[in-house]
This record gives sequence, structure tokens and C-alpha cells, in this order.
Amino acid sequence: MRAPAAPGMRLEEVDTPALVLDLDAFERNLRRMQDAVAGRGIRVRAHAKAHKCPEIAQRQVAAGAIGVCCQKVSEAEALVEGGITDVLVTNEIVGATKLARLAALSKRARIGICADDPGNLRAIGESGARVDLYVEIDVGARRCGVAPGEPALALAREASAFANLRFAGLQAYQGAAQHVRSMAERRERISRAAEAARTTRKLIEAAGIACPIVTGGGSGTFMFEIESGAYDEIQPGSYIFMDADYARNEWADPLPRFEHSLFVLATVMSRPAPERIVVDAGLKASSVDSGLPQVWQRPGLAYTRASDEHGVIEVAAGGTSPALGDKLLLVPGHCDPTVNLYDWYVCVRAGRVEALWPITGRGAIY
Amino acid sequence: MRAPAAPGMRLEEVDTPALVLDLDAFERNLRRMQDAVAGRGIRVRAHAKAHKCPEIAQRQVAAGAIGVCCQKVSEAEALVEGGITDVLVTNEIVGATKLARLAALSKRARIGICADDPGNLRAIGESGARVDLYVEIDVGARRCGVAPGEPALALAREASAFANLRFAGLQAYQGAAQHVRSMAERRERISRAAEAARTTRKLIEAAGIACPIVTGGGSGTFMFEIESGAYDEIQPGSYIFMDADYARNEWADPLPRFEHSLFVLATVMSRPAPERIVVDAGLKASSVDSGLPQVWQRPGLAYTRASDEHGVIEVAAGGTSPALGDKLLLVPGHCDPTVNLYDWYVCVRAGRVEALWPITGRGAIY
Repeated sequence: MRAPAAPGMRLEEVDTPALVLDLDAFERNLRRMQDAVAGRGIRVRAHAKAHKCPEIAQRQVAAGAIGVCCQKVSEAEALVEGGITDVLVTNEIVGATKLARLAALSKRARIGICADDPGNLRAIGESGARVDLYVEIDVGARRCGVAPGEPALALAREASAFANLRFAGLQAYQGAAQHVRSMAERRERISRAAEAARTTRKLIEAAGIACPIVTGGGSGTFMFEIESGAYDEIQPGSYIFMDADYARNEWADPLPRFEHSLFVLATVMSRPAPERIVVDAGLKASSVDSGLPQVWQRPGLAYTRASDEHGVIEVAAGGTSPALGDKLLLVPGHCDPTVNLYDWYVCVRAGRVEALWPITGRGAIY
Repeated sequence: MRAPAAPGMRLEEVDTPALVLDLDAFERNLRRMQDAVAGRGIRVRAHAKAHKCPEIAQRQVAAGAIGVCCQKVSEAEALVEGGITDVLVTNEIVGATKLARLAALSKRARIGICADDPGNLRAIGESGARVDLYVEIDVGARRCGVAPGEPALALAREASAFANLRFAGLQAYQGAAQHVRSMAERRERISRAAEAARTTRKLIEAAGIACPIVTGGGSGTFMFEIESGAYDEIQPGSYIFMDADYARNEWADPLPRFEHSLFVLATVMSRPAPERIVVDAGLKASSVDSGLPQVWQRPGLAYTRASDEHGVIEVAAGGTSPALGDKLLLVPGHCDPTVNLYDWYVCVRAGRVEALWPITGRGAIY
């Protein structure tokens, strides 16, 4: 897929819609994470489902992450292909085709995966994959995972039957807490998740099975997982980008204030009325599942309607309407599915394209 | 990008999530369109923004379409590359990079584009592109387009100044009418759009400028455009697939009943509770801008929540919960942005994969 820019170009010359990464802001976000967890004895396993890009994963590892996580075998393949040597698939992998790929991949890198079903766990064991096996417990998200306690112990026991599976601990991610607006309520939900993880680990260890790692925690809560003392590893993903929906959360200490680094660059393609302009970035350029994109640093302009290839922007009374051909930066509502629409990050510093990073995990949903 | 299937496979063997095209249903939809417009003296220019695939465009042409339309220069490039010789970009194209590509493309195929701004029209003329130029008028969608009447005449005059631009007529698409649920209200909106188009054409012709084609109309309204007598060409796109949101429209004569032919195949990857299962198709596998996907022909199962890589399905009390690893077909809420997530159509007939069609316009948003 043809890249929308070349290094050295000015931002205004980039073809649109394009996914723009502000490198200065991105690097500051990396440092904010590093600073926030320094000296806390916690491992950072950055979530690559947000960025799908080995170039970014490598920078996360350079900033102290022990590896990355992702959600799909095909994503893990893209990451290992891009030089990442430690990848946890924080998800259940079901089906012979996928398990055969997992087994092949496990010969090339340290791979972990999750299980929440005894039949699936046996299928993983029989696939020959040499992997770290995490039992996923449902700590409040009501998605995947067995109930904390005995069901998790039963799976941990099951894992011991396979020489190629190393029971590595518990996946205890409270996904439903991440976008709760109130800090206090997020902390409360993580406190309950941590209690469930702690109790389950004790039960497993009391049965004589080592449970080395409890992993979980996202960009909206990771300091609460650290505070709880129940987690050994956190899995933040969106912190590098900070999308519009995460920005609607209440942010205060101990959570660092990340800044927007990810944008969709769009062109004004029509000016049908003084109060209304149209840009060339719609549903195929910015995922709207968590709200519309927001116009960046252009007071008086509000993105109010998206169709497949168009975004309608209202111009406030008395506001300045951009000219035809002007380019606007939009902050996507939700970074993960927006990134998945693009093949390239156009990496920009001080208004110039510095690099193009391929999104080799784009479309890697299987 | 690796294909999730190979010809000859049974549907159950296809890796997931996958975009499945039921060829029998697709072909019936093609015929329904052909039958509905037969003898009405209307040109069908099928909208390729819905499918982004030359293989499908070729079948639309074989079924009587005079060509296709699309929304972006890069889409038009993919279609021409795939052998389509007549493509109308039903959209404004702004910026030197895009116009240079348009000019190059116009040497390889018959290309049309739209304009709604005199400066942009001059830029198109000066680009050297040899194109059919349609003036876009706003017939009620409040998106792009000049007001009907004098502003359109002024642009038609402007176009005559360039030997490489052939003023071809009016783009008069009422996008806001397509998903209005009531047949009567859709018909009423198209009646108003048709009146605006008719008046504008008369004004242009009274000024001595030929206005050969009025084009517009989508899958939700095209028989009303035909009834109006004001349109020469219709632009239906979604009719080949019929997504869940279009199916919520009232459908009755004279609009044919299209059937669902496009599905997302998903695997049950977790069964955390009797009343809840999780499939491996979330926001990155099915766009939710127009509602969640629907479970196909499995009574008692309702897709109720999507996260990036997961779909939560509730099982009705007394319903049968699928087994882990079972595969379900989902009808996407909105076909266009869902198709844009995939690289392949897995074309299935009688439960077997018959072909894989590459979605060469995937990601062609610039």
C-alpha cells in the first residue's frame, strides 16, 4: 500500500487522510510511563493491540517494557517478525489452525497465551506449543475468563500435565474499569479486581503450584493495580496515543497526564455553507465506536457528523472557516480500531515528516 | 496479507474472523437490481465504495451496469487496475497530489469527478485531467454540493472554459434519505431532491449548456429516483450485500427485497457463563457505527457488546449455547466500513469456499 508521505515533507504536504504520530508527544508519553512506574517493582508489558507496529514495540522495550502483549496470533506473528522476542497473547486462542500457528511461533520467541477452558487448555498442550500459560480470571469485566478461585486452580492443575506448558500465572484484566470517568470509581473497581486475583493466587500456591505472575491493568487504571500490590505486571496500551475517549476520563495523581500524540490528518474538501465545512476523513478514516473525532487546536470547529468518506465540521458563529484544501488534525475517538484502518504511521517532528513506520499488524485480526 | 481460506474448504474450516460472501445470495441481489430497472431507461452505475473490489465491479457491469462509481482517487485507481474502464468519483477531489493522480488515471480509463467550488474546478482543469465533470448540488443531505439553481449554472459555465473538462451533468445524491425507515418519507425526500435537480438542469440548458446526465440515488431509494423521471443514472451500492441497518428500513414495492449476502464469520472463543459466550469478532472485525452485528439464523443468540477484538453474545434463557470453537455468521451493521477492514472476500457456495476475491480498494481512502 502506497505511503501518503515521504521523509522530509512538511506536514501540510502529506496526502490525506493520514495517520500522524507526533513523535515528541509520543516520546514524552513513553517517558511519563517509565517515570510513573520507576522503583515500583512492576513489569511493564505494553499492549501492542493499540499500535500493531514493531517500530513502536521496540521503543517501548527500549523504554523499559519487558515485552509486549497483543490479542491475536496474527498480531504476535507480525511483532515477532519485527524483532520482538517476548509476546503475551492476552486472549484465548481457539481452533486447530490458530494453534498450529501458535506452536510454530513459539519456536521463534517467548510466547504466552491465556486459557479459560479445560478443553481448550488440552488442545493448546497437544498442539506442541511451548508457551507460558496464563489462566484468565474474570475480575469484573464480564467478558472472558473463569471465575476467581477454584475454577482457576483447576486450570492451573490441568496445565501442569503438559511438559510444553509452563503455568505462568493469572491474566486479571479489568477492561470495564478503564473508561469509567471517575478516578474514585476506577480505583474501587481495581481494588475488587486485585482482591480476586490475590485470593486466587493464594489458593493456587496453597495447592503447591507456583503462580509467578499476576498480569493486567490498562492505561486508565495501571497505577491502581500497582498500588494494590496484587499485580506483578501491567499491560497499558493507549497511553502512548491518548485518544479522545480516554481524555474524557478524570486524570489526577497517581496517573500521569498523557497527551494526544495520534492524529488523523484531513483535508477540507468542501465549504458548502459559512457554518459548515466537509473534510475527507469519515468512518473509514477514524473509528467512531467511542465517539466522533475532535478537531485539534482549532477553536470554533466541531466535527459533528461522519459518513463513510466525509466528516462534517460545524463552524461556530463568528468563527474562522478554514479554506478549501486546508489541513486539519483530528484526535480520534478510539485509537485501537482507528490505527487498524491504516498501513502507515506518518511520524512527524516539528512539522516535518521524520519517518514512516509500517503498521504490519494492520488487519491481523485472526 | 495471508488469506483466511483456500478454495474447496468447507465454511467451518475458514479461519476467523473472515468476511464471507454468499455467492448465491449475491448473485440473486445482482439479478433483483437488473430486473427492477429493466425497461426503465435508466443507467445503473453501481457504487464500488461499498465493495472496493474489481471482481465484484466486473460482475455488476456484466449484470448491466454501465460502470461504477467510488469516492476516492485511490479507489478509482484500484478499480481501473482491476480492469474497470468507466469510473465516476462521486466526490470532490482537492489538492495537487490527488489531482496529479487523477490526471494520470484519466489517460487509462473514462473518469468522472464532481466539483462544488470554482477554485477547485479551475485546479482540476489546470491539472490536465481529461474527465467528465459533474457539478454536485445539495439535494437535502447537507453534506457537499452547491445549492441547486444559479450556483450550479455558474460552475457549469466555468467548466466550459477547459477543453479537457466535459461538463457531464449533475451529481444529485440524497444520502440522508437512504436510511430513513419509512418508505413514504424516503419517497417524499427523493421527490424534493428530484425537483431541485430538474429545476437546475432546466436552468443550465436554458443557458445553452447541455446537461446530459443527472446521477444519484442509493440502495434505499433508487426506484423513487427512477419514478421521478429527473434522473438518468442511479448509484446503488449496498444492494449487493444488504447490511443489518438497511434491513431495518421498510421495504416494499417498487423496491426489491434484497437479501443478506455479506457476513462476518466468527469463532466462539470463550463460554464464561451459561447465558454468555464470547466470539473473536469485535470492533476490528465489524464496524458498529450503524449498530452492532446480528447473529444469523441462530435464534436465542444476541450480539450485545463489542470491544476491540471480542463480541459478547447473550444466550436467551432456555436457548442452546454454542460449543467452544463453533462458528457463527454475523450480519454486519454497516457493510461499507466493515468491508474496509478486510483484504479478502471468502466467497462461499453451498457451504464450500469457491473463490477468494482480493479487496484491492481496502484502505484506499486517499
